[in-house]
Amino acid sequence: MADPLDALRSLMAAHSPPLDALVVPSEDNHQSEYVSDRDKRRQFVSGFTGSAGLALITLSEALLWTDGRYFLQAAKQLSDRWKLMRIGEDPAVEKWVDDNLPSDAIVGIDPWCVSVNTAQRWEQAFSKKNQKLFQLTANLVDEVWKDRPLEDIHPVNVHPLEFAGRSVAEKLKDLREALLHENASGIVIAALDEVAWLYNVRGSDVSYNPVIHAYAIVTTNSAFFYVDKRKVSSEVEYYMAENGIEIRDYSIVDSDVSLLASGQLRCLSSCSKTHTEAPVAEISGKDVSESVENPTEQTNLNRIWIDPSSCCLALYSKLSVDQVFMQQSPLALAKALKNPCELDGLRKAHIRDGAAVVQYLVWLDNQMQNLYGASGYFNEPEVSHKRKFSTSMKLTEVSVSDKLEGFRAKQEHFKGLSFPTISSVGPNAAIIHYSPDASSCAELDADKIYLFDSGAQYLDGTTDITRTVHFGRPSAHEKSCYTAVLKGHIALDSARFPNGTTGHALDILARTPLWKDGLDYRHGTGHGVGSYLNVHEGPHLISFRPHARNVALQASMTVTNEPGYYEDGSFGIRLENVLIVNEANTKFNFGEKGYLAFEHITWAPYQKKLMDLVLLNPEEIEWINAYHSDCRKILAPFLDEQEMEWLNKATEPISISA
Amino acid sequence: MADPLDALRSLMAAHSPPLDALVVPSEDNHQSEYVSDRDKRRQFVSGFTGSAGLALITLSEALLWTDGRYFLQAAKQLSDRWKLMRIGEDPAVEKWVDDNLPSDAIVGIDPWCVSVNTAQRWEQAFSKKNQKLFQLTANLVDEVWKDRPLEDIHPVNVHPLEFAGRSVAEKLKDLREALLHENASGIVIAALDEVAWLYNVRGSDVSYNPVIHAYAIVTTNSAFFYVDKRKVSSEVEYYMAENGIEIRDYSIVDSDVSLLASGQLRCLSSCSKTHTEAPVAEISGKDVSESVENPTEQTNLNRIWIDPSSCCLALYSKLSVDQVFMQQSPLALAKALKNPCELDGLRKAHIRDGAAVVQYLVWLDNQMQNLYGASGYFNEPEVSHKRKFSTSMKLTEVSVSDKLEGFRAKQEHFKGLSFPTISSVGPNAAIIHYSPDASSCAELDADKIYLFDSGAQYLDGTTDITRTVHFGRPSAHEKSCYTAVLKGHIALDSARFPNGTTGHALDILARTPLWKDGLDYRHGTGHGVGSYLNVHEGPHLISFRPHARNVALQASMTVTNEPGYYEDGSFGIRLENVLIVNEANTKFNFGEKGYLAFEHITWAPYQKKLMDLVLLNPEEIEWINAYHSDCRKILAPFLDEQEMEWLNKATEPISISA
Repeated sequence: MADPLDALRSLMAAHSPPLDALVVPSEDNHQSEYVSDRDKRRQFVSGFTGSAGLALITLSEALLWTDGRYFLQAAKQLSDRWKLMRIGEDPAVEKWVDDNLPSDAIVGIDPWCVSVNTAQRWEQAFSKKNQKLFQLTANLVDEVWKDRPLEDIHPVNVHPLEFAGRSVAEKLKDLREALLHENASGIVIAALDEVAWLYNVRGSDVSYNPVIHAYAIVTTNSAFFYVDKRKVSSEVEYYMAENGIEIRDYSIVDSDVSLLASGQLRCLSSCSKTHTEAPVAEISGKDVSESVENPTEQTNLNRIWIDPSSCCLALYSKLSVDQVFMQQSPLALAKALKNPCELDGLRKAHIRDGAAVVQYLVWLDNQMQNLYGASGYFNEPEVSHKRKFSTSMKLTEVSVSDKLEGFRAKQEHFKGLSFPTISSVGPNAAIIHYSPDASSCAELDADKIYLFDSGAQYLDGTTDITRTVHFGRPSAHEKSCYTAVLKGHIALDSARFPNGTTGHALDILARTPLWKDGLDYRHGTGHGVGSYLNVHEGPHLISFRPHARNVALQASMTVTNEPGYYEDGSFGIRLENVLIVNEANTKFNFGEKGYLAFEHITWAPYQKKLMDLVLLNPEEIEWINAYHSDCRKILAPFLDEQEMEWLNKATEPISISA
Repeated sequence: MADPLDALRSLMAAHSPPLDALVVPSEDNHQSEYVSDRDKRRQFVSGFTGSAGLALITLSEALLWTDGRYFLQAAKQLSDRWKLMRIGEDPAVEKWVDDNLPSDAIVGIDPWCVSVNTAQRWEQAFSKKNQKLFQLTANLVDEVWKDRPLEDIHPVNVHPLEFAGRSVAEKLKDLREALLHENASGIVIAALDEVAWLYNVRGSDVSYNPVIHAYAIVTTNSAFFYVDKRKVSSEVEYYMAENGIEIRDYSIVDSDVSLLASGQLRCLSSCSKTHTEAPVAEISGKDVSESVENPTEQTNLNRIWIDPSSCCLALYSKLSVDQVFMQQSPLALAKALKNPCELDGLRKAHIRDGAAVVQYLVWLDNQMQNLYGASGYFNEPEVSHKRKFSTSMKLTEVSVSDKLEGFRAKQEHFKGLSFPTISSVGPNAAIIHYSPDASSCAELDADKIYLFDSGAQYLDGTTDITRTVHFGRPSAHEKSCYTAVLKGHIALDSARFPNGTTGHALDILARTPLWKDGLDYRHGTGHGVGSYLNVHEGPHLISFRPHARNVALQASMTVTNEPGYYEDGSFGIRLENVLIVNEANTKFNFGEKGYLAFEHITWAPYQKKLMDLVLLNPEEIEWINAYHSDCRKILAPFLDEQEMEWLNKATEPISISA
């Protein structure tokens, strides 16, 4: 196949005006992190398959920016026509354009694939040298991508109230109150998980993320759902109508945003009538007094709310600058604050998921001993392993991850995986977001660390867990690193903190044990997790990165706890649980702020063989023993006798005097 | 005496235009934290004596904003004509003005007493309702302050190179390189400690801070020192001339800034000739290539650099907007990065200072036993103390702090205290920046906690130490709180962290042990410390506050480590050491970033009687034992036999099995 770079450069040169550079981002029309195959344009042009990255193509150069999780993978996958730009180490895109492209240079972009935030940052940077961000009317990559996949027609499914926990009517009422509070007449919702959450629907348009390619527009008295109508059954049609939501074609969202801008967007169906349950007048009557607080904003009662991080430039361009109200979508926080039904579902899903992980470990331990003569999960051989058996039966990173999927698939409410399983042996474990390929992946090895980071979608919740194990003789250095990662994992898990504390502040707790030895990891420590929705969700994070600075953790949020350590070319370690933020029952309540604490809901043992017990203090050993004791109790109903025997051994308490 | 509020309100009403509000900040013309008596305008109008606070006077209201360190003190000192506004809890000044004053309101300010940063923030906020910040031509407080002190004429002293460690010529060369790097032709330096540091001079115009009321202007080929010439001896005149610095009168700084703006500021003396040691051409030749990096800034080669946090509105107004380059002064970081001579001096000064603190503790322990029948520093009585002795000899917070000053005054190179000693018994210790008054202060009490936070100026360094002690029977709650504070103090002290880590990130380490119990403290955890200069200096901080976010800690900075806990009406606890940031000798160096660690240079024991040993883990006990062992060795040469006997007992190792 011809390299698409050449064809793209021809199109760039022939374009009017000619383009000095073309940006090809990872994101789809909704600024999604994970995208459908037909939206993997950046992967198509560059060959790099990671979930995050941005390509910039000029007439003579091709560059790919990605973050620390993908440095090793991108270096492997990019051909020598590409230059890898390491985010945080190399100059940012806009700086590179400023330094390397001439004054008046024209940089082309498909305005559907770039967020308002990013576009505005670039435009400002480019203006220094009078460089221009040019909005293309067609996506040039699509023009050269001959065998681009078609849009798959997956059905829209209603997510039952027994799992969603909150009705669409209630969610719309809250959203309209937020609109009125900000004097906004409507909102354009572009983020796929926000649309799915708001309307209590799920789909399978994007692998691993149970979302639907759809937009929503909600005004104070109407609600619209923009979707390929072929995906909508008559039941869903009825459900939408019942909830006062009008279904409109995906392709007319931009013209409808124009109508919204001019105040002419109207329901054609009965939607505004059925909405009488929560009439605007009532809400308005309550809220007008509040909005008086801020008299300067009273004048503009027809503002349109968009979230500049998820709304694309194409839709933003339909609005006039003075009517746009740009702020994080109110759904981001609403979705992150799980309701009691969702919390209950998440806890249950994680128990079943933990049972599948333990079943997998039992199976893998047996296989490693039988096929490879490994000393196994519990025993450490005197000397390093010599392979005893010559067998035609091989375990590979992919074959074992398929087995893991099998154990999950047997669990109740299973709907699929929540992301591509990271199943990685030895040096591959140092590739943070490693994605094994069946044709080329590594074989399991009793002399090497094995790291698996995986999760599933269940109707009642989304899971995400990482464990790192060794079936032979880990080195003292591997043990020391494992123990440092575990100490950070425990320190974060055990934290109590006042309301108002951000994930930015907490991040350091997971790193200090590694820092003592001059070690660190190049990724954040935690992300929100959806309820049968995206495995990565905001608005909060536990991270050293600046965007984690402004969102405080709040009770009923979910967040992962996943410190790691990666030694390039050698091994990688990561331990990950999902946590729920709860109110803490502290002895005192200084400052009347209320204090918070974490509840871990992930259940699978930590391998004692990988711990250097000398490095653990008594509180940490108590934490491990308590966690292991809970594992036994909680997973017992889901395991058979042999599995329980293994788990009992894996979770035997460590002696404090050790 | 009549309340100045009434006189001020008359002036406000009579002013043209009439003022709706008058702002009276704490700061002097240099935005100093500590000001001379004649600059204590906010104290004069409000009666509140704290170091930080802002008064806003309207025709009907009087409000005082201050931070968490001063909530209790301000509530005590303000009359009922004043309303206390708690920063972080109540609306900010600009929000209050917006909410409470009418459209078109005029808010008067002396433009010499407000920084550009603050003024611009207010102007922007006020513009929402067309309210105006009006620059007064005279300070209205001065007009009503009949017995305002005169400017004291304290001599300017040269700070010898053996203590400063870096010559004025070298500092000016570095500064001029920074100017050229930013395409700036000159800089206006308003911060008193920056002027003193740059020219290696010290004075005593402000209590506790050995600075001189002076400005500096430095251009690529000239340097000016604006000072009341009565303070300048002929030796200093000679010294300045030798260093190519022209002395000019303090009062003409604003007209000279105007000359600087129009490119007409010239040396009248020989200053530009003597400057041939570091001619501009040389520096310029080296740096022009660098400045090409940023071509957009090349056009403006005549920019004037001001630091918007220390430069006042009055001087800023002399410059045209397009020629001002606003950024933190390059001297802020240069001053914070101590040179080897300063570090050596700081270490030595802290040893002598620690010896004085131990001498004080020995004396106080004896006094408490002899005068009050206390069980003493080492012993805990079975039951709470009953005063045994009736004596006319009383120990008060002020009398004992005078004694402490006496011990310090006997040490080599002593020049005075570095801030008003906080000497506080029981409930007074809960007032974070408590300042005892001889006429009303409390008596020492064997049943109550005693907290002292104090420091001194020595020629070779500035010190700052806090210890909290009990001479009777502390309650279990007091012990538990003391131990939590100590645990945070140890955790921060023990941290290792990569280059790039901010004090904002580290702050949490000192708080987590308190947070476990739902406790906290309403102040930052650490500030920079000068070298025979201000006890509080930036640009770095260890703090949860947002302005600590952007400055990374760097090797050779000083910073305090001072967590605390305060129970209103009952007791307060704080432990404070001064730390030096050093390169850490970590086993690994992940990311090639280089790792940092702290060296504590403060030496005085922690009271074992106040520790709840059950709450300490083995590493913490080892830390305490190692610190105490170092105390003995380091202080021994400065103590007599009886003092050493006491110190040996105070620093006996705690058994790990305890």
